[in-house]
Amino acid sequence: MKVDLLIENVHVYNSYFKKFIAGNVAVLDGRFLYIGQRGTDTFEAADILAGEGRYLVPGLVDIHLHIESTMVTPETFSYGLIQNGVTTIVPEPHEMANVFGIEGIKEMIRASRDCVVDMKYAIPSSVPATSMETTGGTVEVADIEELLRSEEIICMGEIMNYVDVISDPNCKTNQILDYLRKNYPDLVIEGHVPKLLDLELHQILYAGVNSDHTHQTVEGLEARIGAGMFIEIQEKSMTPEVVEYLIGHEVSEHFCFVTDDVMTDSLFKRGHLNHIVKKAIQMGMTPEQAIYASTFTPARRMKMSDRGAVAPGKLADFLLLSDLQAFTIDCVYKNGKKAYDAAEEYIQVTKEKQFPAHFYQSVQLNPLTEADFSVQMDVPDNRYPCRVMLVQDGSTFTEDHRGIVETREGQLCWEESPYGLIAVFERYGINGNRGYGLISGDTIKRGAIATSYSHDNHNLLVVGHNPRDMMLAANEVIGMQGGFCVVEDGQMKARLHLPVGGILTEEPLEKTAKEVEQLRRAMEELGYKHYNPIMSISTHSLPVSPALKITDLGLIDVNAGKVVPLLLM
Amino acid sequence: MKVDLLIENVHVYNSYFKKFIAGNVAVLDGRFLYIGQRGTDTFEAADILAGEGRYLVPGLVDIHLHIESTMVTPETFSYGLIQNGVTTIVPEPHEMANVFGIEGIKEMIRASRDCVVDMKYAIPSSVPATSMETTGGTVEVADIEELLRSEEIICMGEIMNYVDVISDPNCKTNQILDYLRKNYPDLVIEGHVPKLLDLELHQILYAGVNSDHTHQTVEGLEARIGAGMFIEIQEKSMTPEVVEYLIGHEVSEHFCFVTDDVMTDSLFKRGHLNHIVKKAIQMGMTPEQAIYASTFTPARRMKMSDRGAVAPGKLADFLLLSDLQAFTIDCVYKNGKKAYDAAEEYIQVTKEKQFPAHFYQSVQLNPLTEADFSVQMDVPDNRYPCRVMLVQDGSTFTEDHRGIVETREGQLCWEESPYGLIAVFERYGINGNRGYGLISGDTIKRGAIATSYSHDNHNLLVVGHNPRDMMLAANEVIGMQGGFCVVEDGQMKARLHLPVGGILTEEPLEKTAKEVEQLRRAMEELGYKHYNPIMSISTHSLPVSPALKITDLGLIDVNAGKVVPLLLM
Repeated sequence: MKVDLLIENVHVYNSYFKKFIAGNVAVLDGRFLYIGQRGTDTFEAADILAGEGRYLVPGLVDIHLHIESTMVTPETFSYGLIQNGVTTIVPEPHEMANVFGIEGIKEMIRASRDCVVDMKYAIPSSVPATSMETTGGTVEVADIEELLRSEEIICMGEIMNYVDVISDPNCKTNQILDYLRKNYPDLVIEGHVPKLLDLELHQILYAGVNSDHTHQTVEGLEARIGAGMFIEIQEKSMTPEVVEYLIGHEVSEHFCFVTDDVMTDSLFKRGHLNHIVKKAIQMGMTPEQAIYASTFTPARRMKMSDRGAVAPGKLADFLLLSDLQAFTIDCVYKNGKKAYDAAEEYIQVTKEKQFPAHFYQSVQLNPLTEADFSVQMDVPDNRYPCRVMLVQDGSTFTEDHRGIVETREGQLCWEESPYGLIAVFERYGINGNRGYGLISGDTIKRGAIATSYSHDNHNLLVVGHNPRDMMLAANEVIGMQGGFCVVEDGQMKARLHLPVGGILTEEPLEKTAKEVEQLRRAMEELGYKHYNPIMSISTHSLPVSPALKITDLGLIDVNAGKVVPLLLM
Repeated sequence: MKVDLLIENVHVYNSYFKKFIAGNVAVLDGRFLYIGQRGTDTFEAADILAGEGRYLVPGLVDIHLHIESTMVTPETFSYGLIQNGVTTIVPEPHEMANVFGIEGIKEMIRASRDCVVDMKYAIPSSVPATSMETTGGTVEVADIEELLRSEEIICMGEIMNYVDVISDPNCKTNQILDYLRKNYPDLVIEGHVPKLLDLELHQILYAGVNSDHTHQTVEGLEARIGAGMFIEIQEKSMTPEVVEYLIGHEVSEHFCFVTDDVMTDSLFKRGHLNHIVKKAIQMGMTPEQAIYASTFTPARRMKMSDRGAVAPGKLADFLLLSDLQAFTIDCVYKNGKKAYDAAEEYIQVTKEKQFPAHFYQSVQLNPLTEADFSVQMDVPDNRYPCRVMLVQDGSTFTEDHRGIVETREGQLCWEESPYGLIAVFERYGINGNRGYGLISGDTIKRGAIATSYSHDNHNLLVVGHNPRDMMLAANEVIGMQGGFCVVEDGQMKARLHLPVGGILTEEPLEKTAKEVEQLRRAMEELGYKHYNPIMSISTHSLPVSPALKITDLGLIDVNAGKVVPLLLM
């Protein structure tokens, strides 16, 4: 019998028995045909691969992540994934949707089509996440209907505003969920439901949302699984207690591993879903369990019955590991073809201008002046109690701190205060809105940072301690049509160019990874104290993440869900 | 919070932990809203049901069965199912498709729409099963395409001609499979693959067929599960070894229970899928395991994510059991409404003429004469070796036996032989074909039986020992447009009227069950020795079941796959 590829003498991961079985594997037309003891006695193979007793496992499947978190194109992302053994992903282009609406989603899908990695998309469900911000685009019910006709769409992405879903039957998300339940009852609907328990947890499941990838506790995990929720474990959920629970209880059918957000340099240096697998093994999980949770259960969750296991008829996406415990990847095959070999040079060939021309002209702002960082206050001269956004190391949450600030001749004397200024400029040419606030805590102590990469609305966000540095940083980002810029004493300390929608670069992974490291170092040199200052600053504008945030509409009290004034009078 | 129903104080089956947990259950709009410790403190319930510590389990789900095996309409079948706790089924209307083609399938679906039980249909894949028979209808690729647009269709039914699939790339079934893989890659495709192992098993999986409901051995079971096949265990597979294997190995995700074929009296007396559950428990399976295999895994196999568990958002289909070990059903709820209560009278209200008028005129044959049971043989007078169909108790397989028979004046002297005559008359008005053969073994020893219920083609099949009884039996079936008739010495001993397509009755379940019993007894009184003589005789015409069978084209050597002569010359 003719086959395309015969892999001889391997330990094959069997997903159904969750164990390795020694044998040979035959591949025909990109799919596994046979796994067992037969070899060249039965098969006339166009190509024979010597397994040499190595471990053959399915290609890794990551069903919850945002490519934009890595600030690269799908093409670069695919290049980064393959060498880490990830062959299928379900990205949710939430950020590109906030910048360009449905067109952003469609262009991400288009840019993925020629990638080695299979990308099946989740529809961003909460664009914009709130009504307290201006975004470049929105996703409405009609957009969802249009997207569902595209074969690359596999699920509804994370439903973020679970509070509305439970409390407001008429909110936009409930309109979407009602529509989906009625018209697409079998569609997978992903959730983002931190902390919910008991009745509220059951209400969100009743609404059709039946997965969660947020930070897990053992109590929350057990409540979720018992109520029929599928759990997507990301690195921050991998506490010793949670991993111990997953190892010690018969719950292997009910969870998988995901990455959610991976920074560029982290992808380059540590890897991707394979890093989570390694970590799980280091924490005491058997390789068999960890592989199951990164191949079989994620594929099944997304109803991708054509993958996630090495079995007849499944796509021949597989890895050969030389060391199982260390999860050392020797080579990666996609659809039966070799896509990566650790013993060979692996060079990224990048394409330029993969997106429509206007995707490179998304920062619709004229250059700013120092006056744009003067804050007018139509109040009598006085010292006023005020709100201060307190940045905290180790979290993307901020505190809603109270301080004192002076006003003089209708101006906020922020430069004389112990606080920095944070400003947001609407950058889509829609309304010219601006929001101002005061900032303190573990952020920079001098100089300025500007960025168009600011969740979820991605308006121009500037933090700084003097108008000149702030203006320079902001104008650099405007001038290069997106990215980050760090300035101190009139000198540019670092920049990252993100020309695609102001949030992605088309540069190669390695180059971008280095620039991201330099950017982070420059932020730290200005006094930023955070395990990830880039993520920290880019979530200052995220009005669904507690407690005090800022958008182009002004300061947002997230817990109260409303715009609040800077001065407390 | 307002709910429709609150069930207090029950032990609720949790499918995710495979155990019972005490609590209360709230239902809203036909779906479970909440399961836990909250009760009237939280919920204002329109109706309260006292659980009294009973066991609340999901409604049973049977994903492989043929309603026609019970010879009743979907409506009557639903009535029979509900009292046995079955709330969802996946019937494959294979027989009605053989009689009326796609119209038969559509009418079965239509007749199911108002039933209490949810019926999601499988498309019969092999109609006709062979080219060696004349059927009333066929199912072609275009029909499948049309059916797939109907929302009641959930999967492709059992692929029966696995030999063709493996050996003939151009056979009709491979054309269907190619079409489905290309156009409906996520469609569930059910299999019928007895005995296959190793390479052939992997080839059938590679073709896209990934379940099996045929008789299982431990070896075959392990090979199937290990290769990624889902196993549907029917009663005949429940040998002590197989059940022991299922109990002792971690394979609960990979199998479910199904009924396949249940006779009318068996449904009435023993029950349905609940009978299999009881049997599994009696054989040593825990109730928790047995319930899992008759609710959660079958629903998941069919991607019915809205049922199969008692969890928030799932359909409120459930049973209350007073005795878990004995699986004693007190009441059954469908979509949150009571559908059956063992303490109340449960009367079947039957409808008549549910099908189109021509469904009641499907036996297109003029009355036969005694001469129709004379077999012409254009051979010199002599004694000839001949083929004899040897009926065997305990099996639907027959033996291809060798005998001796005389011919005289161009006539087969079968009445003088030790054998009976078996004749098949094409009954759709298509070609007037007739097939004749000799029969012996555990069949009747005198009189005659005629039936239009003869798998899969359902032509008129007559077995008998004298032309007069055969003619009388045949004409009774023709006259009543379908059914069974048993005659001895010119006297009718039993009959069963099956006017819908010649294979179903619209009479109530209890009446039909009694008639089926009488029919079986009458067959036994004529000497039939078989645990199920009705099934035995109705498979004499099934040309995919070894070894010697008969159709309107003549005797079929099933293993050789061809029509063969009666006389061996």
